[in-house]
Formats: sequence, C-alpha cells, structure tokens
Amino acid sequence: MRGAGSHGRGRAAAASAAPSSSAPPPPPPPPPRRGSCALVGAGPGPPDLLTLRAVRALEGADVVVYDDLGPSEAALAHAPPHAERVFVGKRGGRPSIRQPEIDATLVDRCLKGLRVVRLKGGCPSVFSRAGSELRALAAAGCAVEIVPGVSSALAAPLFAGFPLTEADLGRSFTVVSGHAAPATDWGALAGADTLVVLMGGAALPVIAPSLVAAGKAPDTPVAVIRAAGTEEQRVWRSRLARVVADTAGEELSPCIIVVGAVAGIDFAAPGAAPGAAPGAAAGAGSGGGGGGGSQGGSCKEAG
Amino acid sequence: MRGAGSHGRGRAAAASAAPSSSAPPPPPPPPPRRGSCALVGAGPGPPDLLTLRAVRALEGADVVVYDDLGPSEAALAHAPPHAERVFVGKRGGRPSIRQPEIDATLVDRCLKGLRVVRLKGGCPSVFSRAGSELRALAAAGCAVEIVPGVSSALAAPLFAGFPLTEADLGRSFTVVSGHAAPATDWGALAGADTLVVLMGGAALPVIAPSLVAAGKAPDTPVAVIRAAGTEEQRVWRSRLARVVADTAGEELSPCIIVVGAVAGIDFAAPGAAPGAAPGAAAGAGSGGGGGGGSQGGSCKEAG
Repeated sequence: MRGAGSHGRGRAAAASAAPSSSAPPPPPPPPPRRGSCALVGAGPGPPDLLTLRAVRALEGADVVVYDDLGPSEAALAHAPPHAERVFVGKRGGRPSIRQPEIDATLVDRCLKGLRVVRLKGGCPSVFSRAGSELRALAAAGCAVEIVPGVSSALAAPLFAGFPLTEADLGRSFTVVSGHAAPATDWGALAGADTLVVLMGGAALPVIAPSLVAAGKAPDTPVAVIRAAGTEEQRVWRSRLARVVADTAGEELSPCIIVVGAVAGIDFAAPGAAPGAAPGAAAGAGSGGGGGGGSQGGSCKEAG
Repeated sequence: MRGAGSHGRGRAAAASAAPSSSAPPPPPPPPPRRGSCALVGAGPGPPDLLTLRAVRALEGADVVVYDDLGPSEAALAHAPPHAERVFVGKRGGRPSIRQPEIDATLVDRCLKGLRVVRLKGGCPSVFSRAGSELRALAAAGCAVEIVPGVSSALAAPLFAGFPLTEADLGRSFTVVSGHAAPATDWGALAGADTLVVLMGGAALPVIAPSLVAAGKAPDTPVAVIRAAGTEEQRVWRSRLARVVADTAGEELSPCIIVVGAVAGIDFAAPGAAPGAAPGAAAGAGSGGGGGGGSQGGSCKEAG
C-alpha cells in the first residue's frame, strides 16, 4: 500500500536481474527512495481503542512522531524496536515544539525514504492540525495515508454513560474547541442542540456564563468528562448555571464538556455491573480517586 | 472483564470438585448465569478500522446482532464459528425489524447467559439508537459495555482529502441526521461553520435549498462522499447552489455531506501517490467506476 511504489521498483530491479548471463552490467542506481507518512489517530486514550489499521501502520514504521498521548503512548509498543521515536507533544510547562517544526520533521524523514507514522490523539479530522502537515507533505511530494481514529468528542460521552444523539433529545451536535474560548462566538453556539467542547477545561468559567448570557437555559444539563475511558476518568454532572461552582478547585483537563439534554442521561446506572471494564459505560463511575466532586453517575444532582 | 463473573463461578466450581473423597455431595446448582452485551462500533466501512477492543469483544461473543454494515460485515469473521449471527439491519425494500424487537433480542440473549455483541456501523454515540438498547438492557439488569468506534462523520472527510477542522476555516462543526430532513430546522443549522449531514443523500434536494433560503452563501463548498473508505468510494465536489444539479441522477447513498469552507479543500491532491491505498487520502479519487459525476479531487469546479 504505502510501500507499493518501492515494491514496484523492487520488482522491476529483480526482473532486470533475472536473465542471468555470466556478467550482467550493474543495474542503474535506483531512483532515490521517497518515503511516506501516515497520519494516524490513536483514539481517546485506551491503547486498545487503536484500529487494526493503525496498528499495522505502526508495525511498519521506521519513525513515529507522536504527541503527548497519555495512556495511548502505550501504542508506541506496536512500532518495531529499531523505529525512531520523536516526541513533539506539549508536556508540563516546557515550551512546546511549533507546528512548522513538526511539519519539517515529517517531510525530512519522508524525503530520507522512511516510513513515518504521525500519531495523534483522537481522530486526525478534529482539531489535530492535520491540514498543516498534509500541505507540507503534499508540497514535498510525499505519499500520505490518513488513518481515522476514535474521537474523544464522541467516545467520552459513551464512557460517561450516554450517546451524543438520542431520540427526542436533539437532532444534532456541535463540536468546538475551547482553546480560543475568549475569541469564540459562544452566542452563535448557544443554539446548538448538544454542544461538545474539547480542550475547554480551563475556559469553563468563560464558556458557561457566555452560553447563559446568549440565552441558553441555565438548567441545561452539563457533563464534564475528564480523562475519558482511562483509570483516571472522572465525570461531573451539573447544570449550566452551576457547573463552574460545582467544579471549582478541580483539575478538569484533559476533558470533554457536553452541554445539552443528553448530558443529563445516565443510561448505564441501573444496569451497572461490577464486572464491567474500566471505561465501560457501566463502569463510568468507577474510575479515579475518591476525592471531591461527583463521579460517574453516582452523584447526580436533584431536579 | 465481561466474562469475569462467569470465570469466577467456573473457578469456584472447580475448587469444590477438587478435594476428591469418594462421593462428595453434589454442589448446589449454580445461580442463573446472566449474560452481557457489548455495544460495539464497527467503524465507517473498512473492516480494519475496527478497534482492537471491538475485535476482542467479537472473539468472545456467543451472539452477534448486527446491522447492514456493508464491508464491515467482514468483521463478523472475528466471532467464533459457533456464535449465533442475528441480522437486524435494513436491506433492499424489505420491511426492517423494529427497534423494540432488536432491544428484546439483546435482552433475551443476555438473560440466557450469553455474551452478546451488538455490532453497529460507525460509533454508537452517533445516530445509532444506542439509547433505546441501553435502557432495555439496564432495565433487565444486564451488564453493558460500550465500545466506541470510528465515526463515518469524521472519517469520510479524511477519506475525501480534508479534515473537518482547519485553522481559519471554521472553529466548529455540526453533525446532523438527514433522515428527517423535512422536519429539520435547517435555518437553525445554516449558521454552522461546517455542517456534516449523515443519511442525507435522498434529502439533498431539500437540504441544499433550505440552507440557501436560510442565508447560507450559495457558493459555500459542498462535498458529497459516498461509501467512504471503501472500493466504491466516490466524491462529488460542488457548491451549495449547484450540488443538486451536479449530482442529479446519481445514487448518493450511503453518503456523508459536508457543507462549509473545509469541503473546498483537497489537501491530498498535490501529493497524490499512485501507490496509496484505496481509502487513503491520497487515493481519494481512485475509488469507484469511471461513470459520470466528479470523483475524488480529480474534478473540482472552477472558482
């Protein structure tokens, strides 16, 4: 697939060598091998939420360029031991590598003829800066494959016990980044049936009042889902007018915030089973420590 | 995990049989074994876009209850040969099974102590009726696990050559079902940065004019992506005011419709590589037959 070009050249070389007279002239030097890059979604956290295709790409990688993926970094184990591992994520307070440098790293390795895997959290379709990388790779003539992944925007609600769409509770959902919250027109988003905010933990004190000010009902259910699907998962259930107070002092990031009627549902609670896996809907309340704040479906407010 | 309860009982039974005096009293009958149900996303089509967790669930299944999944039905091969396979999808003009019957099927098998996998296209979070099934299973006391999947809403644009979010081309995207198009308030959705319509092929002649009537710019880019990621993939690139004419007479379903500036991008085109896989971004234009309509990035309109 990604290697088809080089395989093709390999076959051609073999064919030219096949008619074996005594001393065939040496074949011309092969054209410079051009590598490839697969932009691969690593999913929302648990390493077994990688796709089979993602695993196959990692198994064939010469280089893996990866973000801070949390538990998904375990996915790196699928790459061969000899594969170069290049960390380009943001971590702690350290200055993070800038996007043009990441783009250049991918192109550099591709032009050396290597098979590069660019491993990203979630799905490359969503707030992943895939566009910048695709443009750089395309300009350099590198072959690109994109492997979609499980997005945390859709998976986190499931881990918390509800799907994003539910009959009679909204016909649509809107996904937005909270990264540039002050510059975002929350008024335009207040009309969304269900609003899913990624990277919005720090901006919750901006987002929630802005939505209320724009006319969103103050008692609209809100779910804040931190570290969805992992051992550290915690879920806060609240209402738009109260969620800032309800989560005050808590470390929310990385989290998904869901605003809308579906966020008031906990389908899993009645059938919660002790044998359910961490990260399973029925186990949504089982992750994390016993500290403050409401966990899973175990702490739902009245009304 | 899901099997932990029964494994525990199995070990207990073995232990009681171990101290072999001549004629031990028969052990009490085991408590009725209660099964489990995993709601599993099968992804957007290609069977290798299943997650590792989905594969593991299938490998442990006694029963697989599945929709019409197209190419993803190949995923059924992961279930053991003895596993019962129950088709509950819609196909051709035949009357389709109603949701309460599906719910009852899941509960029935669970209460027989079986490990049930409910295999759904895409991700259970999105237009999958997971809510109804979760409610029924919870009411019956069945253990439930939910395995998120790769959603076609997010994957199809990647297969067509663009991510759903791109710097400066919209901060959000909205996903809606076109299933109930005439009853949908398209005016409220016209303000979305990027609109993703699932199951909207047949309703395109309602959707496109409604969006224009609600104030959406007639030259807003539109991409219609049919059978994303499969050998049958086709992509039409057009504009809101023209897309109905541009796709007239074509069979569009199953498709994803994307309306917004990102739908005008084809990142893959400059670097398109002949060796890229069907379904890879670089191969977006390679699927399908040579019939009418624009395919992949190969037929983009002027302006």
